[in-house]
Amino acid sequence: MTRLVRSAISRATTALLDADLQLAESVISRDEEVNRLFAEIETTIFELMARQQPVAVDLRMVITALRMGTDLERMGDLAGHVAKVARLRHPDSAIPPEMRATILEMGQIAENLITKAGSSVASRDVESALELEQDDDAMDKLHRRLFRRILSKDWAHGVEPAIDITLIGRYYERYADHSVRVARDVVYLVTGSRPG
Amino acid sequence: MTRLVRSAISRATTALLDADLQLAESVISRDEEVNRLFAEIETTIFELMARQQPVAVDLRMVITALRMGTDLERMGDLAGHVAKVARLRHPDSAIPPEMRATILEMGQIAENLITKAGSSVASRDVESALELEQDDDAMDKLHRRLFRRILSKDWAHGVEPAIDITLIGRYYERYADHSVRVARDVVYLVTGSRPG
Repeated sequence: MTRLVRSAISRATTALLDADLQLAESVISRDEEVNRLFAEIETTIFELMARQQPVAVDLRMVITALRMGTDLERMGDLAGHVAKVARLRHPDSAIPPEMRATILEMGQIAENLITKAGSSVASRDVESALELEQDDDAMDKLHRRLFRRILSKDWAHGVEPAIDITLIGRYYERYADHSVRVARDVVYLVTGSRPG
Repeated sequence: MTRLVRSAISRATTALLDADLQLAESVISRDEEVNRLFAEIETTIFELMARQQPVAVDLRMVITALRMGTDLERMGDLAGHVAKVARLRHPDSAIPPEMRATILEMGQIAENLITKAGSSVASRDVESALELEQDDDAMDKLHRRLFRRILSKDWAHGVEPAIDITLIGRYYERYADHSVRVARDVVYLVTGSRPG
């Protein structure tokens, strides 16, 4: 799931910046795969809980897997939302030229966050999981920069692009938040307590 | 938690429409209470799982409680976000006069949804839980109406109110979605399978 939602946000960002309709469509249709994986995980976990009655660290593991799955499924939705804005504005780009760099950077931070979260999940590495909070701060900074730009006096693109960028900014910011939640769940899984 | 987040969205809507700073502040500060309740629920559930090793319907109940708690905690955040927009624009109102009726209606649907979800949780009533999907459709309709209005040619309020309304619309729509998730969890809890 972490690989799929990383690929989804990466392709959604490209689709948005290049006004690539085919790529946008592929992000939207492939989200089904993430949903299917999550449904499988849920089924497996409920069966496992019913049959094996896990306790202590095992129980913590299945609960954590459910929570992570919920977050990752949502991240797939958010990448799909970004792709839908690209599709809606095709053949135009939803992003005015002077904001491309900021959106590109938000896409890269999103990818970076889910890459780190994914490797934390795989390696159960608490140190790298805790690093994500800082990367998320960088996302929040870029998000604020977007708003400053839209609300500046020399904004000449009108209301529609401002709305697109407001929503897109929110999608990236939520994507980042969910990555941090996944990482925090790694900390909980390994240590048994939540980061403060 | 359902009572607290219902009160929160109700007061946030009033704060927004009346530009009532004190009410907005109270919504924001009282969200802490929702978060604290959720932390208590989590602690209780993890202890209960470790000590009593629940199976079958009991296990389904604790898992469902965790999921519901996550959704309700998020709904508290969203009500807080609405209140923060009211606070940001005080002493002005973020909502232009001609859109007040739509926002009021969205607030009422949100309240209606969480009221129904809350009584479904209390009574484990599958029928009323399934009704929520229709109420959520009404929210989606109003959400689309907001966008049509902001994007219409005679929109005269500029970019800033358009952004506020874009975000506010998104908060109400997400609040509604989370209510539906809570109701779907009631269906799962009672029947053991998810509504299709």
